[in-house]
Amino acid sequence: MAILAWLHNAYGRDLIEGIRAALPDEDVREWPDAGDPAEIDICIVFRMPHGFLKLFRNLQLMSATGAGIDHYLLDPDFPKGIRMVRIVDHDFASRMADYALAWTLFHHRDIAHFLAAQQQHEWAYKIMRSAREVRVGVMGLGQMGRLAAERLAGVGYDTAAWSRSRHAVPGVTCFAGPDGFDEFLARTEILINLLPLTQTTRGILSAATFAGMPPGGVVISAGRGGHLVEADLVAALRNGRLRAATIDAFPVEPLPKDSPLWDVPNLHVTPHCSSTASIRTIVDTFAENVRRFRSGRELVNEVDTVAGY
Amino acid sequence: MAILAWLHNAYGRDLIEGIRAALPDEDVREWPDAGDPAEIDICIVFRMPHGFLKLFRNLQLMSATGAGIDHYLLDPDFPKGIRMVRIVDHDFASRMADYALAWTLFHHRDIAHFLAAQQQHEWAYKIMRSAREVRVGVMGLGQMGRLAAERLAGVGYDTAAWSRSRHAVPGVTCFAGPDGFDEFLARTEILINLLPLTQTTRGILSAATFAGMPPGGVVISAGRGGHLVEADLVAALRNGRLRAATIDAFPVEPLPKDSPLWDVPNLHVTPHCSSTASIRTIVDTFAENVRRFRSGRELVNEVDTVAGY
Repeated sequence: MAILAWLHNAYGRDLIEGIRAALPDEDVREWPDAGDPAEIDICIVFRMPHGFLKLFRNLQLMSATGAGIDHYLLDPDFPKGIRMVRIVDHDFASRMADYALAWTLFHHRDIAHFLAAQQQHEWAYKIMRSAREVRVGVMGLGQMGRLAAERLAGVGYDTAAWSRSRHAVPGVTCFAGPDGFDEFLARTEILINLLPLTQTTRGILSAATFAGMPPGGVVISAGRGGHLVEADLVAALRNGRLRAATIDAFPVEPLPKDSPLWDVPNLHVTPHCSSTASIRTIVDTFAENVRRFRSGRELVNEVDTVAGY
Repeated sequence: MAILAWLHNAYGRDLIEGIRAALPDEDVREWPDAGDPAEIDICIVFRMPHGFLKLFRNLQLMSATGAGIDHYLLDPDFPKGIRMVRIVDHDFASRMADYALAWTLFHHRDIAHFLAAQQQHEWAYKIMRSAREVRVGVMGLGQMGRLAAERLAGVGYDTAAWSRSRHAVPGVTCFAGPDGFDEFLARTEILINLLPLTQTTRGILSAATFAGMPPGGVVISAGRGGHLVEADLVAALRNGRLRAATIDAFPVEPLPKDSPLWDVPNLHVTPHCSSTASIRTIVDTFAENVRRFRSGRELVNEVDTVAGY
């Protein structure tokens, strides 16, 4: 049996070399040099095209290169019954928390105001609120959402979180399920989306959600492109319902050169780099999972492909 | 005896009204309506001109409106033997920590890169380091420096601090005195200045300090204008010794419209609003000190005018 790598991203070369070094006894093939497709039983992929995986009829295990796996689950031709693992490490969640914190502070401290004033040579003094006077709300309490909420609370923000099922996070006011959503939104000035993409969360960054927040709120999304209703976001920014937004993930990526989103006032675009796993962590986790799979042991970070996370 | 207020700043009106309401039995006068200068024994001032206080020969107590008191101590005509109090509250230190954290994250996450890329409609992906991989160093371990160092360490930064005398802060590598300065600088990528302005710290943000840091470092100063050697900062930014800087306090304020500093690449100017005390805290602390002074009790936040903090 053999391993196939489809890794056409910025650091694919380093990954493949790392995997070959970590698994010297494995036959690691690189698309398009897959050899006999029937020999492939394990693959590691970064956003391969939908329909690709069904070419490998003996495929049993797929590894992602990061935490996000919605792209794979949304493949209508995703082979039934294969197992999926993802890469989760503390640093991944930690980098995501850095992103959430960086942009929360950017908006709380109104850094855009000072950058704009500087261009006009204006000494534009402004009294700032303390973090404890600012109500932030995190959507999603998976590993990433939890760490972000803990960090935000740790630096003093008045922090809430909302998730599908009820959780408890010290120092964080937790809301859960559809019943808790309105109350969560009503108290949230800065909304941070770290949800997984599922059928229930698709399109959650919508006009209805923005309308539930206090006027002049801020949205930060480090979730998935499918969470975002682009037209609603643009409208909310243009009519002032939202004061600002920072979005890391878009329905179409890279965001096309001619996308109108680039030029929407108070919309900050980041190129889907809120967090990345390190090469080292991807290689180590993948190699460990290959060894465990070959010897029939429990896998690391296996995904429940039915629940979607 | 009477109280004189010299409060010509943005919120002076609110302060005077608050003080009159809090001290209904006191004769609170507002410059220039001081009446007989010999009747003034207490004053509250915001950056009055040097030489002003010596007009009041029976002055015994001066209150600042914030934590910074170097402007007053540097007055060559500052009356000998008068007592000085300042305003320190947890929120003041907390807002300052917010500033330190906001700009540390701004530089760590290279937000300027993403803002510039967006203007060009460029999807400029960049791999980020985790906070724990970034070495930050706080100069000054007074109430503000300590809280900033604690918060930076709390969100995961590899944090050090440097102060005149040795301190211990959990999770923070502490350096002290002239002997510890070089080692502190050599490991510090992002330098955050929260020192008081004294004879030893004047001009500390100099070419020699920048040269002691790893190349491509960042300086964030929420200290005093007197800490900064402007020409050295500009040179270090222009020749790339420093990657970026954020400066909140300048030798001359407001920074003049025609100052070349506004346009130095990678220099971010903020208009001395890294932190402010709240009106409520200033009024409450001042009223409490007036009552304590009148009844001969120990004052709140009295300054050692010899040590300078």
